[in-house]
Order: sequence, then C-alpha cells, then structure tokens
Amino acid sequence: MPRIVVDVMPKPEILDPQGKAIVGALPRLGFTSFSSVRQGKRFELTVDGEVTEEILAQARDAAETLLSNPVIEDVINVEVVEA
Amino acid sequence: MPRIVVDVMPKPEILDPQGKAIVGALPRLGFTSFSSVRQGKRFELTVDGEVTEEILAQARDAAETLLSNPVIEDVINVEVVEA
Repeated sequence: MPRIVVDVMPKPEILDPQGKAIVGALPRLGFTSFSSVRQGKRFELTVDGEVTEEILAQARDAAETLLSNPVIEDVINVEVVEA
Repeated sequence: MPRIVVDVMPKPEILDPQGKAIVGALPRLGFTSFSSVRQGKRFELTVDGEVTEEILAQARDAAETLLSNPVIEDVINVEVVEA
C-alpha cells in the first residue's frame, strides 16, 4: 500500500536540545566528523488505495496543522512512497 | 555544507503509541484518508568539508549505535544531501 512520508524539522533559528546532546555525545563515541546535528520527525501515513491529488493535499494540510508546530517547526518534505 | 540524513522508524512489530494517537486524531480534524500512521525520527548531521566513504561509514555506525535503539527501531535510510 502506498505511504505518504512527511518530514518535519525544527526551524533553523530554534534551539534543538536533542541535537545538541547528540553532537556532544558523538566525539565521546569516536565519531569526530560531524559539526552539528538537528533532530526532527518522520511520519509515514498509510493510504488505502491510490494516492490522489486530493489525498496528497489532505496530507500536506495535516502536516501543517497536526504533525508539526508551525511556531517552531518546518514541514520540509511531503512525498509519496510506493510500498 | 553537505549533510547526512538518517531516518529511523519503529520496527513494524513494535507498538507506536504516538502514531496511534495521530491516527485517532486525524478523522476528528477531517482527514479521513489515512489508515495508519507511524512516527519515527529524522536526523541531519552536518559535515565540515567533503563527505568521504569513511565519514559515511561513521554516520552509518553512529546511526546504529547512538541515533537508534536497535531493539525497537530500524535505521531505514542514511543518505548524503548537498546543502
């Protein structure tokens, strides 16, 4: 069944404490090549049947209203993935 | 600067309470086209300079050891994105 993938990331100007914690932990584990880390969310919405333009528009709308907080987060990607 | 994107999702057999909460909330907001939702994580690791094979291998290793919990999560994607 097709899925719609929605990617949400904290806005660049917003502090991301989880990302900061990870970037602090990486060198302690021997991973020294990364200068910054941001943590966001990935949602997979399963659709019964075909993904129409209307369903994709619903997914974009849901991404902006339910899956992300537009004050602190950006929806950076909404795309269809065939299972 | 290039970034490495790491996508982590709960394993299919693992209960995902956040996804369940979202799939329950969607119809109340008028979004009726989605039969299930899974919520995972997306990480963006910024690399200073070029992404070599060695740095990509470090990212894959970090994804399995620090960015995901292999008991309940799968690393489903590690890819380079040019900024």
